[in-house]
Amino acid sequence: MTTSTRETQIVADPDVPLVRITREFDAPPSRVFRAHTDPELLVRWLGPRGLEMRIDSFDCRPGGSYRYVHSDANGEYAFRGCFHDVRPDELIVQTFTFEGAPDGVALEKLVLEDLGNGRTRLTATSLVDSFEGRDAFLASGMETGVVEGYERLDEVLAG
Amino acid sequence: MTTSTRETQIVADPDVPLVRITREFDAPPSRVFRAHTDPELLVRWLGPRGLEMRIDSFDCRPGGSYRYVHSDANGEYAFRGCFHDVRPDELIVQTFTFEGAPDGVALEKLVLEDLGNGRTRLTATSLVDSFEGRDAFLASGMETGVVEGYERLDEVLAG
Repeated sequence: MTTSTRETQIVADPDVPLVRITREFDAPPSRVFRAHTDPELLVRWLGPRGLEMRIDSFDCRPGGSYRYVHSDANGEYAFRGCFHDVRPDELIVQTFTFEGAPDGVALEKLVLEDLGNGRTRLTATSLVDSFEGRDAFLASGMETGVVEGYERLDEVLAG
Repeated sequence: MTTSTRETQIVADPDVPLVRITREFDAPPSRVFRAHTDPELLVRWLGPRGLEMRIDSFDCRPGGSYRYVHSDANGEYAFRGCFHDVRPDELIVQTFTFEGAPDGVALEKLVLEDLGNGRTRLTATSLVDSFEGRDAFLASGMETGVVEGYERLDEVLAG
């Protein structure tokens, strides 16, 4: 089976303050792209299990912007940014800020590659302006959210 | 006189793929900010002398976007991006792409500091995801555009 290729790789780049996430999905790029750009699908998988997600705005086009809120019993966590580039089934470039640390901003790039046979490789990079900021992001518990989020995305794509 | 403090410093960061530009102006932050956010002022100074500038769109607010075109006898050079954050008189965070190299994107941060006595220190950083890309940007002749642009901005602020 394909279990081995469903592993989420999270790599800290050795040269620049960037995190690179790689994951494969059993669905073609068009469906993986739609799951990132259709708010009704996005709320079903983005982030770890056990959090509720509410989208305040989501205008996924070059020059659009977004804001969403994750919440649990402890409170709310809001995120926002703007979309720099959106190419259907291929690429999304956006900014990203956790409103709890409003001076921090990441430049995020999502690339989808068609592996054939209805499969897709997703590469998501997140660039910040210091290694301290990058390493704090890695130490923040983001791995759980990423791994569980992509498991939930598998479920959305299988549904 | 203040000639010495009008020097434009352009520094390649040793640790991360970032360019840091520092410049002081004989005007308070509110006027320097307005010269960056009012399209009628911006076209009078952004870029080197000898180029015409046309603004196609310029929605300078968090979640807005922009596109402008420089032109000379050799042709047109278009640039575009989105505004991630805009704090009056203090901060602008935006993305930036030269459309001639549409896969390249920079995360730009403009910070204005009040030096008192009607003076401002501007710090503009530009972050990309590789040292090769950063060094190509530095080697592109950008220095002329930056230095001449800020001399033209002096003239706008004096006007």
